[in-house]
Amino acid sequence: MTGLAAPQRAQVVGTGLIGGSVALGLRKRGWHVTGTDAEPEVAERALRVGAIDAVGLDAGATVAFVAAPVDAIAAEAQALLAQTAAVVTDVGGVKEAVVSAVGDARFVGGHPMAGSEQSGIEGAAADLFEGAVWVLTPDTHTDPSAYTLVRSVVATLGADVVDLSPRQHDELVAVVSHVPHLTAAALVSLANSRASQHAALLRLAAGGFRDMTRIAAGSPTLWPDICVENREAIVATLDELLASLSELRQGVASADRSGLLSTLGVAQAARLNLPGKLARPAELCELRVPVPDRPGVIAEVTTLASELGINLVDFDIAHSSEGGHGVLRALIETSAQEPLRARLVDRGYRPTFRPLE
Amino acid sequence: MTGLAAPQRAQVVGTGLIGGSVALGLRKRGWHVTGTDAEPEVAERALRVGAIDAVGLDAGATVAFVAAPVDAIAAEAQALLAQTAAVVTDVGGVKEAVVSAVGDARFVGGHPMAGSEQSGIEGAAADLFEGAVWVLTPDTHTDPSAYTLVRSVVATLGADVVDLSPRQHDELVAVVSHVPHLTAAALVSLANSRASQHAALLRLAAGGFRDMTRIAAGSPTLWPDICVENREAIVATLDELLASLSELRQGVASADRSGLLSTLGVAQAARLNLPGKLARPAELCELRVPVPDRPGVIAEVTTLASELGINLVDFDIAHSSEGGHGVLRALIETSAQEPLRARLVDRGYRPTFRPLE
Repeated sequence: MTGLAAPQRAQVVGTGLIGGSVALGLRKRGWHVTGTDAEPEVAERALRVGAIDAVGLDAGATVAFVAAPVDAIAAEAQALLAQTAAVVTDVGGVKEAVVSAVGDARFVGGHPMAGSEQSGIEGAAADLFEGAVWVLTPDTHTDPSAYTLVRSVVATLGADVVDLSPRQHDELVAVVSHVPHLTAAALVSLANSRASQHAALLRLAAGGFRDMTRIAAGSPTLWPDICVENREAIVATLDELLASLSELRQGVASADRSGLLSTLGVAQAARLNLPGKLARPAELCELRVPVPDRPGVIAEVTTLASELGINLVDFDIAHSSEGGHGVLRALIETSAQEPLRARLVDRGYRPTFRPLE
Repeated sequence: MTGLAAPQRAQVVGTGLIGGSVALGLRKRGWHVTGTDAEPEVAERALRVGAIDAVGLDAGATVAFVAAPVDAIAAEAQALLAQTAAVVTDVGGVKEAVVSAVGDARFVGGHPMAGSEQSGIEGAAADLFEGAVWVLTPDTHTDPSAYTLVRSVVATLGADVVDLSPRQHDELVAVVSHVPHLTAAALVSLANSRASQHAALLRLAAGGFRDMTRIAAGSPTLWPDICVENREAIVATLDELLASLSELRQGVASADRSGLLSTLGVAQAARLNLPGKLARPAELCELRVPVPDRPGVIAEVTTLASELGINLVDFDIAHSSEGGHGVLRALIETSAQEPLRARLVDRGYRPTFRPLE
């Protein structure tokens, strides 16, 4: 085993909604949390509301969360790596640029898929991440023990980890978050411009419209940087959406009833297929994979599992006493055993599976 | 006063989600409801679950609701007008084509802005319309007493009436309902096509995405007809949305941070400006307007109020004993008094306002 005792000291850089929620969640579980913010009065406010124990830099922290705007993350992470021995992770909404800029064995990119219509420390909550998905993006630089530590802390906060490569993350969030946000903004602005001609429009904006545009109510300040950092994936996704909407427009204009029915039927099936809150799998088995103890292995195995939609639970790495080798251990749903075995064997790994007693 | 006793017999044509909910709501309030459906077993099921008292046509009904697919409404309404003395209304999602096709003094177009992800009588609920907006579209043919009757029955079901011209209705629902629905379908289909390449995408589809695409889970069967009947407004609105999204795409591609911030800031303000559940106004006053007792007056006064965003409560018409004239009476929010007075005077009316004791 790694022999790591549960780390008890954390650093949070950026004490707004997400950083403040991380801090509150860790403090609730007995951690000592030190925080800073680019705006000193924001850190002071976090201290006053009990989100952090102290303002400043804790050289003894074992883990540090960078919860800064995306264009500031790389520099903050590098400063922490230089000034402390902590494993450093971040919570930014775009990953490839940050991960490649930092490129350190002690850095693990992250992105909790949780938020709030509120912003700032006032919206922070200790349970913000309970049941939420938290993406980690280990890459070829990532040290296995750094990854394992971040994963365990994230799990402590109640989140479910999904491992993705930084690029995969950016492509997928363009689809499920960035482009939907821009679309919600476009829809609500369009309605607003019509409402200026007809006040009753706002009264007609019932449940469905309210649901669709809710995310546009969030603070816009973070979005320009997210859009610019992830512009390639966002532009590609917007182009696909524009093509789909143009096709629907054509179907409406040409009164193509059967085409519209078919398109909307596909969408209905897709929406009904969206999983609800992740159910804890009923039957688990233990996966063990002997791995060389080097950066890159974690990224390969974990993102391979994610590509198959497989959730790794209770992830750990047992190192051999001679060093140089280890055994990656995790629980997975029993039904996922065969597809995962096949993919791992393809890549030259020798996994074993064992039913839980 | 009109002297109308509360009517107690209703006819419902089409006993699915909306027709079934109307029937359940009226029965709960002591009405006798008779129903039919194009599919006889659907009406039988409505009878078995207690949504209607009898299957068939009630020649003694005072009000009839046509809850059929939009392309069948006009014919069903005309049949009811021919076979009964009832005032007839409908619940279709597109109004101009139906209203102009029927063109009868006893017909009042309607559209309750309520729904459910469920469909059919199984999704029906007596309280589906509580607090919902129910659009009525009186036009130049509409008899004042027919309008007043439909309005009172709709109010009985707990809905808030918004009056619009049929064309205004169609233009506004294209913006707040039809185009959002098509957009949700396009977004979820896009995500679904990506998910086939990467199973983890579905795990990343968190709250915001789920909210945005919820309406796409509804049954698609009604939508082709809605799209075709309202194609002009839908195409115009889709064109505006496509232009907005193309502009956002350009902002992202060119890294125009300040342009993006400004666009998203406008959207945020617009979304925060959406009214929540309609608050009952704190201070009401009574509006009285002497009106000639002829079709068209109701449409003019009520849609004029709606254009100003003014809610008419407890609407009624008192007829003069000599006939030919009447007094339209309603309660409005006191703050709306001056703008409404100005518009009514412009149109040649002589409104008076009186504070409630």
